[in-house]
Formats: sequence, C-alpha cells, structure tokens
Amino acid sequence: MGSLEMGRKTVGWAARDSSGVLSPYTYSLRETGPEDVYVKVMCCGVCHTDIHQVKNDLGMSKYPMVPGHEVVGEVIEVGSGVSKFRAGDVVGVGCIVGCCGNCRPCKADIEQYCNKKIWSYNDVYSDGNPTQGGFAGAMVVHQKFVVKIPDGMAPEQAAPLLCAGVTVYSPLNHFGLKQSGLRGAILGLGGVGHMGVKIAKAMGHHITIISSSNRKRDEALDHLGADDYVVSSDGARMQELGDSLDYIIDTIPVFHPLEPYLSLLKVDGKLILMGVINTPLQFVTPMVMLGRKSITGSFIGSMKETEEMLEFCKDKSLTSTIEIVKMDYINTALERLEKNDVRYRFVVDVAGSKLD
Amino acid sequence: MGSLEMGRKTVGWAARDSSGVLSPYTYSLRETGPEDVYVKVMCCGVCHTDIHQVKNDLGMSKYPMVPGHEVVGEVIEVGSGVSKFRAGDVVGVGCIVGCCGNCRPCKADIEQYCNKKIWSYNDVYSDGNPTQGGFAGAMVVHQKFVVKIPDGMAPEQAAPLLCAGVTVYSPLNHFGLKQSGLRGAILGLGGVGHMGVKIAKAMGHHITIISSSNRKRDEALDHLGADDYVVSSDGARMQELGDSLDYIIDTIPVFHPLEPYLSLLKVDGKLILMGVINTPLQFVTPMVMLGRKSITGSFIGSMKETEEMLEFCKDKSLTSTIEIVKMDYINTALERLEKNDVRYRFVVDVAGSKLD
Repeated sequence: MGSLEMGRKTVGWAARDSSGVLSPYTYSLRETGPEDVYVKVMCCGVCHTDIHQVKNDLGMSKYPMVPGHEVVGEVIEVGSGVSKFRAGDVVGVGCIVGCCGNCRPCKADIEQYCNKKIWSYNDVYSDGNPTQGGFAGAMVVHQKFVVKIPDGMAPEQAAPLLCAGVTVYSPLNHFGLKQSGLRGAILGLGGVGHMGVKIAKAMGHHITIISSSNRKRDEALDHLGADDYVVSSDGARMQELGDSLDYIIDTIPVFHPLEPYLSLLKVDGKLILMGVINTPLQFVTPMVMLGRKSITGSFIGSMKETEEMLEFCKDKSLTSTIEIVKMDYINTALERLEKNDVRYRFVVDVAGSKLD
Repeated sequence: MGSLEMGRKTVGWAARDSSGVLSPYTYSLRETGPEDVYVKVMCCGVCHTDIHQVKNDLGMSKYPMVPGHEVVGEVIEVGSGVSKFRAGDVVGVGCIVGCCGNCRPCKADIEQYCNKKIWSYNDVYSDGNPTQGGFAGAMVVHQKFVVKIPDGMAPEQAAPLLCAGVTVYSPLNHFGLKQSGLRGAILGLGGVGHMGVKIAKAMGHHITIISSSNRKRDEALDHLGADDYVVSSDGARMQELGDSLDYIIDTIPVFHPLEPYLSLLKVDGKLILMGVINTPLQFVTPMVMLGRKSITGSFIGSMKETEEMLEFCKDKSLTSTIEIVKMDYINTALERLEKNDVRYRFVVDVAGSKLD
C-alpha cells in the first residue's frame, strides 16, 4: 500500500539468509521503461519453490530475496511502447520476467526453455540489478511477461494459476492430451497436483489420484472431483489400473520408483515428471520400449499458454482451492506448506496487508 | 531346398539347449490355411536377439528352437483367402507372426505392441504348436505378417531391413522425425546402429556417431556416410555437441549413464532407447524437465511401417552392409556377432545351403 507514495521504492518481505525467515525490506524499483508495466501487487500465491529458494536448498540463493511468483496486481503505469495493457487492468506475473528473444525456444514462443531466461526473483536483470518477487507492494515487469487476468476472475483465484495452473496445463497442451475422454493419474496432491485434478477434469478426463496413504481420499473424491483414488501400496488396485492410463502427472518431489507407474500406462502413454529430484530416478529399458512409453517432464509454461489457460479456466469456471492469509502470516504459511498442511495453496492478500 | 520334396516337413537349424549351438532339425509345418502363405526361405539375417534366445539369456527359451526373424523367401502356395500374394512373389517375414487383432494397438495398426503377439520363433501359436524361425527351408505364415519385397530389391539386402531397418525407421516415423534437416546421433554401431545411420542419412539428417572408442571412426565417416564422430569420453567434443540434437538413437545394450546424452538434446529432443537393459538406467528429473526432453523407446515396427520402410529404402537405393554366409557357418557367425565382429549384419544364404 505504501509503495506508491514512496515513488520508486517499495516494501517487500525478504529472506535475509538461509533460515528463510521473511521480514520487511525496502528496495528500489526501476523507472517504467518503454516496454514496462508498473504493477501494484494485489495478491501472490505461495509455491513450494519459494521454500527451496529462501532456504538456499539449491545453493544458488542471493539475499535479501523477496520471493513470490504467482502475482496478481493492478496496472498503475505503462511504458510508451505498451499498448496491450493500461492503468487499471488486472494482470498477472509468473515465474519469469525476461528471456533472450533470439534463441530457438524464444522464437517458438516457449521462452520458459530459454537458457537466458530471468526468474521473477533470486536472479539478476541484464543490467545486474536483482529481481524481486511478488510478496511486495509493487513490481516493474517487461510487458512480454505480463498477462491479462480475464474479466470476472477473482485475483486470488487467478494467482495459483500463474505457476501451478500453467505447470499442469502446459504439458497436457503440448503432449496432445487435451481432448476429452482420456484417462490420467495424478501422483501427489499438493498445489500442482490439486490444480492438475481440476484442469484435467475440466478437460473431460477420467482422473485417478495415486497416493501413498488414504489421508486425502475423501478430499480428492468429494471435494476435488477425482474419479478414483488408489493407494500406491495396494497391489491389487495397482494391478487393476495396469495398462489403462494415457498419462501420469507425477508431482512427487522426492525419490520414488518409476516402474510401478510406468506399468499403468497404455502403449504410447506418458509419465510427466514435475518434481525437481536430484537423486537419480531409475527404470529398466523394456518398461519404456515395449509400450513405446515416454518418461518426460515439463517446466511451467509459456506466456502464450498462460493466456490460453486463464481463458480455459474462466470458460470452465474453474477455481483454485486456496487459503488466503496476510503478509505477516507468511513465515507460518511457509512452515505449514513445508509440512503439506494446506488445502491446497496459500495466497497472500498483499494489498490488504501492512507491509512495513 | 529339400523341404518341399518332404511335403509338410522342413529342415531348420535348431538350438537344442542353452549352449546355443545350432544343428539340423527336421520338423512339421502346418498345412497352408485360408489366410496362410507358404514361403520357401531364400535368406535370413542374423540379429543379436538370436543369441539371447538360443542361449536362454532371458530365461524363457524352449528347445528345439530354430531362430531367425529377418526372413526373405519365395511364395510357393497361398491360402484361399489370400489375394495380396501369389506363388513366385518374393516376400519378407519379420519378428512377429501373430497378434490378437482386437486390442487397441492391433486396431491402431501397431500390432507389435499387442500383448498377445506371437514371436516368429520361441513362441507358440494359439493351437499350442511351437513357432520356428527363418533358418529353415520353409515357413507357413499368416498373410498379415508377410510383406512384399519391392521389385528390384535383392533378397539379401532386404533381409536386415525386416528387423534392424524397421526398428530405426519406426521411431523416426512415429515421433515426427522424418523431415530433412534434423540433427541426430546414433549410439552404438552394430546392426541396428549402422542401419540407423543409413536410414537417417537417407532422410536428410545430420548424423553424429557417438562411440566409446575411435575404432569405427573411418568406417562410420567414409563408408556409412555419417557426418561426425565423437568419442564419448572426449569432454570438449561432447560439450560442443550440447543442446544441438533433435534425437539420439541409443542402441547400447548394456548399462550406461544417460545424463551425458540427455544434455546433448535440444529442447523437446528425444532419447530413443533400443537396447534391452535390465540393469536400471538413471537420470535426474531436471535433465528432462528443463528442456521438456523425452526418454523413450521403441520396439521393432508395424507391418504397415515395414511396407513403408521397404519402399523408402528402395526409393533411396539404400543398401545394408552385410556379410553373406552359408548355414553351416551359423555357429561361427553367432560367435563373431557376439564379439561385434561383423560389418554389420550376417545374412545366411539359406536357399544356397545344404540344410540337412
């Protein structure tokens, strides 16, 4: 709230070290350049990646770090070269705020695979200044990485779509898995997994949740609308599922055997990995060869897909299941998220919070 | 040669036990049914799989076993329901002689993925009788699994195409990798690998051979027409190749690390595994996720693809590099093949051999 009155300063909540504890931090935003959109943040979703980043789990964190990459805000000002947005528009910003524009992925509109992409936070712009994320009063973002939130979609509903939503939409779109009637499974029912169920159901798929326990059964079937729920240790049910699935979206973030899941896929089925796991996963080659199955993965989605996905979610009246919190709850939210204690995504009401 | 005079008997060369030594064996062929084609074998290629089968490496061998699944022969007689072939035609038979006809793969003309497929040898027909392969005077085969050899193609040239050829053609066809200008690599330069170079070059691809040693460099570049040759331990050359390949055809039949190869693929690149390896292969998920790469595999090809591939090879005047031997050399040929001591495929001149 205070950010505008402070001109090009804003207040965000930053981690200062690998304890990952966030606290108020005042920093400068660049002036609105010709291609820039100056956005007052309304709300911002909390992603599991935020935990890895603030705690330096990947060993590449720079502090102070303001996380947050599921940002919805209101346009305050646009640069002279921006015609797509104007003041008052409700817009979204996701995981990426820059790319080279010249490489093969950039030219193919899959800029998320550009080797020079710039992350929304814990990265540096080409001028060497650090990027800072959405747990802050405002952001200045190149128009290419800003997306219009469809009229009528609530900002807090839109926020989780900007990372979790497009992360599942993109592979279903890219791998030709959008048509109705397909059979899929979701492994792991966190932020991405829950969105996977909702998006896949909205596409008309038959969706089975496969989980290590029965803990989320009622939730998955009654609330999220999954068609079936199988505990992975239930050999009989797993055998029933054999050779029946067109795809599996695997959001498990830790080492796990792949073979029990590969065997569930039909010929030409796809196992789509979404969890960053640095312990090697394993498989024997006949498991993929004898059914021409693919082990693949996908990484967020393009801005083009983000636009498509938002329209899709609006058309299908799809909503995220979220818990809205204020900024001063963020450290508790991160702790709870780490324990998977959230149904299913925290969204910080940034505009309604006291930031400084 | 003697098989016809013996009526429904034929002589093949069979393994009797897991020593894998082949010797003459007389057995009965079924009468030519309405859908059958009675084929006098002219020649038959020797595939690495033959070694695994005769030596019971997979633990499922039944003896006596007449191997051979790259069979070219002359039609002697056809059943009343056969209109596609007639006596005198030169035809081919590959790895499979039966399928259920009703499952999803069968209905999609990818019968090689039918769970009830019947192998050309070391299997049983639905009536319980054993199948026997192409190192024999004759075979009786359902017309669905017989393919016309294009006019003008030499039988001994056609033989290796029926397994090794279609094994590389099929994934390039299926995964959308037929257009010219693509960049691929072949790992392993055996029967399948050498055919991979020839077929991919005929498609207009830029092909790099990646090998553990320099031993086959001149051969690959001068004789097979590969564009480049890289020794996998040469870090500098491997780094140069990084992020440059649309696909890799990996024919290595033993455990090997995947990451050095995954890193060579462009975004959306495909690692296509062709070697049956029962030691688990390993990868870390970011290697596939961050470039939407696929680890996949493929298994021979369909009869439809076999027909297409034969026409393609004829149009491109593509030839296999073979060493023609007589039947009584088969045990030596198997020994040499096991040591990779062949350029690049043995073909047995069955019709020109004394079988009994």
